[in-house]
Amino acid sequence: MSGTPMAFSDRASHRAWLAAQSALPAGFRVGVACFDFTPAEAPKPARMTLTLIALDKPSPDFAAVFTRNAFPGAPVTVGRARLGEPGLAAIIINNKISNVCAPGGVGAAERICTETARLLGCRRTDVLPSSTGVIGWGLPVEAMIASLPAAVGALAAGSVMPAAEGIVTTDLYPKVRRAAVGAGSIVGIAKGAGMIEPNMATMLVYLLTDVAVPKADLQEMLSGAVEPTFNSISVDSDTSTSDTVVLVSSGKVPCGDPEAFRAALLKVCGELAEDVVRNGEGVRHVIRVSVSHAADFASARALGKAVVNAPLFKCAVAGNDPNVGRLVQAIGKHAGSLPSPADLSGLRIRMGGVEIFAAGAFRLDPSKESALVAHLKAAELYASAPAKDGVFSAPVDFPAHGRCVEIEIDLGREGGASAVVFGADLTHEYVSENADYRS
Amino acid sequence: MSGTPMAFSDRASHRAWLAAQSALPAGFRVGVACFDFTPAEAPKPARMTLTLIALDKPSPDFAAVFTRNAFPGAPVTVGRARLGEPGLAAIIINNKISNVCAPGGVGAAERICTETARLLGCRRTDVLPSSTGVIGWGLPVEAMIASLPAAVGALAAGSVMPAAEGIVTTDLYPKVRRAAVGAGSIVGIAKGAGMIEPNMATMLVYLLTDVAVPKADLQEMLSGAVEPTFNSISVDSDTSTSDTVVLVSSGKVPCGDPEAFRAALLKVCGELAEDVVRNGEGVRHVIRVSVSHAADFASARALGKAVVNAPLFKCAVAGNDPNVGRLVQAIGKHAGSLPSPADLSGLRIRMGGVEIFAAGAFRLDPSKESALVAHLKAAELYASAPAKDGVFSAPVDFPAHGRCVEIEIDLGREGGASAVVFGADLTHEYVSENADYRS
Repeated sequence: MSGTPMAFSDRASHRAWLAAQSALPAGFRVGVACFDFTPAEAPKPARMTLTLIALDKPSPDFAAVFTRNAFPGAPVTVGRARLGEPGLAAIIINNKISNVCAPGGVGAAERICTETARLLGCRRTDVLPSSTGVIGWGLPVEAMIASLPAAVGALAAGSVMPAAEGIVTTDLYPKVRRAAVGAGSIVGIAKGAGMIEPNMATMLVYLLTDVAVPKADLQEMLSGAVEPTFNSISVDSDTSTSDTVVLVSSGKVPCGDPEAFRAALLKVCGELAEDVVRNGEGVRHVIRVSVSHAADFASARALGKAVVNAPLFKCAVAGNDPNVGRLVQAIGKHAGSLPSPADLSGLRIRMGGVEIFAAGAFRLDPSKESALVAHLKAAELYASAPAKDGVFSAPVDFPAHGRCVEIEIDLGREGGASAVVFGADLTHEYVSENADYRS
Repeated sequence: MSGTPMAFSDRASHRAWLAAQSALPAGFRVGVACFDFTPAEAPKPARMTLTLIALDKPSPDFAAVFTRNAFPGAPVTVGRARLGEPGLAAIIINNKISNVCAPGGVGAAERICTETARLLGCRRTDVLPSSTGVIGWGLPVEAMIASLPAAVGALAAGSVMPAAEGIVTTDLYPKVRRAAVGAGSIVGIAKGAGMIEPNMATMLVYLLTDVAVPKADLQEMLSGAVEPTFNSISVDSDTSTSDTVVLVSSGKVPCGDPEAFRAALLKVCGELAEDVVRNGEGVRHVIRVSVSHAADFASARALGKAVVNAPLFKCAVAGNDPNVGRLVQAIGKHAGSLPSPADLSGLRIRMGGVEIFAAGAFRLDPSKESALVAHLKAAELYASAPAKDGVFSAPVDFPAHGRCVEIEIDLGREGGASAVVFGADLTHEYVSENADYRS
């Protein structure tokens, strides 16, 4: 993962940069529509956005990966079945309600697909549904169907931005990344923010390309690309029931170099994955953990995840407190829970480039403490400012910089494998977001 | 685990109840001393408390269990070795610095033991050291040695309360539990609060008894007692590097009924374990998860832990928000990560006695929503009140009631095993405590 480091001084400059990334590949259109409704389970007015991504004609070349949560949403169940269909013509996405374990959820998703297909003139099975939002509630199907013509009417080529903005929920800003491949391109959009420790994909990611790559190759390349990217991030260690990454090609541009396509796909996935963390719920510090000289990629990544998922260490980072004891606690908890004991005798740890642990003991002194505090402060995205009512919220809706809290864990094994994991701190802003989010 | 439900209206009544639990078994004395010092690694004045538990004479009958963290503190390393010694005469405990992975940590712990033994007239190897506090820093050995005579001079029979108060750090109140066994008793004290998901023991627990039980039986009974008690709780999913549970008998009272002793030990451990959660850092709701009809105890407990360790569900509980979708997400994440898929077709979930999930789907309506909100509010220990500076802290230092957020997960397997897990919500008070704790 190597997200392009970026710094923006204000919302306008960030949005301008996003707009410059947003040119739709040939063969795609997007359209969005909003409506108000009242959920049946907890009556209180809400607003839903429908986002429609349509191809000019059904494409045989598409791929997807989905959550490994044992209670996948109905759209995931339907989406898995769609992988066996001969073509994909459209993706219909809603926010507010995720359609997970709601009675009749699959039927509701298929009705939305049927109506979408009728309006677009394609088959129901050419339409892939996606939903994100509250788990357990049922979709307002009739209200969605009533709003579908507006989404179809809004379909336009040119920019993916309406879709990037339409799919968000608690995200502070839309996420768009692109890469050129010969005469074509890949453009990706993501919705993230919370319940983010993907175990197959992140919440909702749509990767659109005009480069012609056969279906089997798309699936193989996508599955390979998600492992070091979306499957290597964690905002809060929760794994959504809706995680979905879809890659679809309109086939308009011949693919001269499959390896260039693979590299471009990996780049877009890596950048979007880091974007999802940097815009995670309540995130004030992005933490990058590089694990090296490990037995294999999987164990290196698992150790990195253990660090970014340790609540006390996450709190220390939030407070710009270099409490590196909590970092070693997290490594030790993980190593101590493995079936066979790990050899940690060669462990070396650096934070912000400063060696803090070697040869079985900490290497600390007051000057290192000062350097670590400075490193943490430099990586802070914004300072926490309490509101009078005790509800904390982010004062900025753009990424102020691309810096991370840098942690290097060298396991000292000769040769060996490495992994990079992105995570985040645990903040008042996260608690405020999630103790009151649904109410 | 079946902690005695209790409700206290104020600090004084709680302290009076604790005092009534605190009669030391025959053959024990406790003494405490405090001193100020400046840590070498981050110079800033601090106060340390030394707590000494002494037997009238070395006892051959003692047992202990320790953390499974791969970076155990030096006192844990020394303590493991002590299990092979012929007798135990004293336990010397300090707070503030945990002596974990500090250069020369084992030597420092042994020096404290040597000086303690010299003052008590026993052997160095008769003394067990324990430390809790910041990980990574070195003990202020000379200052501790200078303060030891005061702790020895304070030794007194009668009450364990000075030790229960001496060992705490961020705990809001001391924790004491007792059980009678024939003419004798078991009295236990615990220090908990943060970094609590014991994987062998909780942070520091000392169980003192005058009932004569042989060493081998003590160890077997203790190992059995910690599994459904200390090893079935989680405040924040972090596993301390210092977790220690020690059980020592002065042998003054003959044991007429070993099974009665075992039951009393289980009771004291269960009550202390629940106390540790109820007084966990920032805890405003205790969550009790009962998992039934599972394949075995271990898988039942692992599922319960997955629920109480899911940050988004913990935040929802903090906000009195019955966001049961996040509960099912947590179950599904855990089940989806198992090597072989779990059969969840018979899953039924109740919260506060209300059925919320059955036959693969949620069973929700507005009246259930209201009932769940009322259940959550009734289980709240205190309302969160923001301070002007944004730092949240608990307004009470006693347990206002013994109620829990009750979650029942029935896996529907015929026969089957069960487990009860205690956990807690994720609150602003936890973040405030841990984003600034060390600074």
